[in-house]
Amino acid sequence: MQDTTFFDRLKTHAVAVETLLDTLLTADVREGEIARPDRLMAAMRHGVLNGGKRMRPALVVESATLFGGSADAALRVAAALECIHCYSLIHDDLPAMDDDDLRRGQPTVHKAFDEAAAILAGDSLLTFAFEIVASTDAGLEDAQKVALTLALARAAGLGGMAGGQALDLEAETRALDEIEITTMQAMKTGALIRFACEAGAIVAGASAEDRARMLRFGRIIGLAFQLRDDLLDLMSDSETLGKAAGKDAARGKGTLPSLKGIAWTEERLASLIAEAQDLLSVYGERAAMLGKLASYVATREN
Amino acid sequence: MQDTTFFDRLKTHAVAVETLLDTLLTADVREGEIARPDRLMAAMRHGVLNGGKRMRPALVVESATLFGGSADAALRVAAALECIHCYSLIHDDLPAMDDDDLRRGQPTVHKAFDEAAAILAGDSLLTFAFEIVASTDAGLEDAQKVALTLALARAAGLGGMAGGQALDLEAETRALDEIEITTMQAMKTGALIRFACEAGAIVAGASAEDRARMLRFGRIIGLAFQLRDDLLDLMSDSETLGKAAGKDAARGKGTLPSLKGIAWTEERLASLIAEAQDLLSVYGERAAMLGKLASYVATREN
Repeated sequence: MQDTTFFDRLKTHAVAVETLLDTLLTADVREGEIARPDRLMAAMRHGVLNGGKRMRPALVVESATLFGGSADAALRVAAALECIHCYSLIHDDLPAMDDDDLRRGQPTVHKAFDEAAAILAGDSLLTFAFEIVASTDAGLEDAQKVALTLALARAAGLGGMAGGQALDLEAETRALDEIEITTMQAMKTGALIRFACEAGAIVAGASAEDRARMLRFGRIIGLAFQLRDDLLDLMSDSETLGKAAGKDAARGKGTLPSLKGIAWTEERLASLIAEAQDLLSVYGERAAMLGKLASYVATREN
Repeated sequence: MQDTTFFDRLKTHAVAVETLLDTLLTADVREGEIARPDRLMAAMRHGVLNGGKRMRPALVVESATLFGGSADAALRVAAALECIHCYSLIHDDLPAMDDDDLRRGQPTVHKAFDEAAAILAGDSLLTFAFEIVASTDAGLEDAQKVALTLALARAAGLGGMAGGQALDLEAETRALDEIEITTMQAMKTGALIRFACEAGAIVAGASAEDRARMLRFGRIIGLAFQLRDDLLDLMSDSETLGKAAGKDAARGKGTLPSLKGIAWTEERLASLIAEAQDLLSVYGERAAMLGKLASYVATREN
C-alpha cells in the first residue's frame, strides 16, 4: 500500500495525540492533586511518548469523524486509550511477565528506570486515562463521559485486556486450543481495539445501531490485527519489528498462524478485510479512511 | 476506647462493603466483557476480601449519611475506593517495591499466587474501581459519577497515591526532610482518605462549602492516620500489627515520629483530633460517628 494521503492522515492523528499527551503530562498540578513527582512523570512519558503507530487513537478519531463528532473530544478519548495501551505494554514487558528489554527499538521502562518505577508508571497511566475522560471540557455531556468510562473500564479490566494477559500467561504452562486462543486474543488485544471503534460513535452521539455496527467493525479489526501480529512474529525478524521476534514460538505458545499455517492466515485476513469493508459500505465514501485503516491493520509490515 | 456501638457500626460497614465486593467479583460477565478468568479473579479476591478494617469505606458511608446521601450509592463508591486501596497494597507488597510476604496475617498476593498474577490483579482492581463508579444504578446522577471519577483518579494517580509511593521509594536512597515527608505522606496515604471524606459529600449532593469542609476533615484524618501508623511501626511488634513491624527504621526511612520523637507525635495526634472535632462541630450530634472515627484513627492499636 503506497497511499500517501492515508499515511499523512495517520501521521496527523499520531502527532495530534502525542502533542496532547505531551501537554497533559507536565508538572502542572491539577485541582485534587498534591504534586507530580519528576521521576515518575519521566517514566510515564518514556512509556507513552515513544513514537508508537497510534493505531487505536486513529480508530477513535476516524470513527468519531464518520458520525460528525467533535475532533477535540475524540482526541481526548484517544489520548486516554493510548495511556491504557501503553500502561499495558509497560507492565507486560516486566521481568515477571514477558521480560522484554526492548520496545519500539528503545529500552523498556523497567530497563530505562527500574522495576518499581515501571509498575508505578503503568499504574499511573492507567489511572490517568480515567482522569482524562472525566476532566475533558471538549463538549462531551456527562452521560457520554460515563458511557466512555464504563466501556473503557470493561475493555481494559479483568473481562478484557488484563484478563487476556492473564490467560496468555497461562498459555505458557499448557497448550490452548483454537477457541481458547481466540478468546484470549479477543480479550488481550481485541477489547481495546473494539473500544476504539465504539468510542468514536459514543463521542459523536451516534445511534445505537451505528454504535453496534462500530463494535462489530472493531471486533473484526481486532481479529485482523492479532492475526497479522502473529504472522509477522512467525515470519519477520527483530529489526523490522522493533521488538523481539519469534518469541511466541520460542516459548511454545500457540498462535493461529502456527496452528493453521501461513496460507490459511492470509486467506482469513483477506476475508476479514472484505467483511470490514462490507460493514462500512452503508456509510459510502465517508468511511473511506476507516476502510483503509482496516486494510492497513491486516497488511502492515510491522 | 470501649464504645461497642461504634465498633458494631464500623463492623456493619465492613461487612456491607465486603458483601458488595463479594457480589461484584464473580464470574458473571457484564456487557462489554468477554470472560472473567478464574485465576485472575481468585487473585483479585485474595487481595480485596481479606478482612481489612475498611476504614475508608466507613468514612465514605458516614460522610454520605451526614449529608443525607443514599446509603446504596455510598456503599458502591466505598467498594470502588477499597478496590483502589487494595490494588495499591498488592503492588506495594511486590518484591520490586516493599517486598512483603505478609499482609493482615496472610500471604501477600504474589506469595499466594505469583508476581505476574499480583501485578494483573492490582491492575484489574484499579480498573474495576472505575467500572463500579460508572456502572452504579443506585440513584447517582451522571454529573456525580463524573465528579467521583475525576476526584478518585486524581487522588489515586501520579499527583496522589501512586506519586506518593514513588516518593516513598526515593526516600530509601536519601533522607527526606520534614516537609518532604509530609508531602509524600499526604499523597501516599492522605489522598485516598481525603477522597473518602469528600466522596460522601459528592454522593449526597452536599453544598460546595460542606464538600470543602469534608476535604479539610479528610486531610486531618489522613495526617492522623499516618502519624499513628508510623508511631505503631516504631513501638509495636509484628504480631499485633499483622504485618512486618519496625521496617521503616530497618530501611533507614525517616518518619515524623522517628524525627520528632514519641511525645511530640502524641501531642500532635491529640491536636489533630481536636481540630477534626472542631470542624465537625457545626453538624452537632449528626456527626458523632465521624467524630469517633477521627479519634479511632488517631488512637488505634493496629
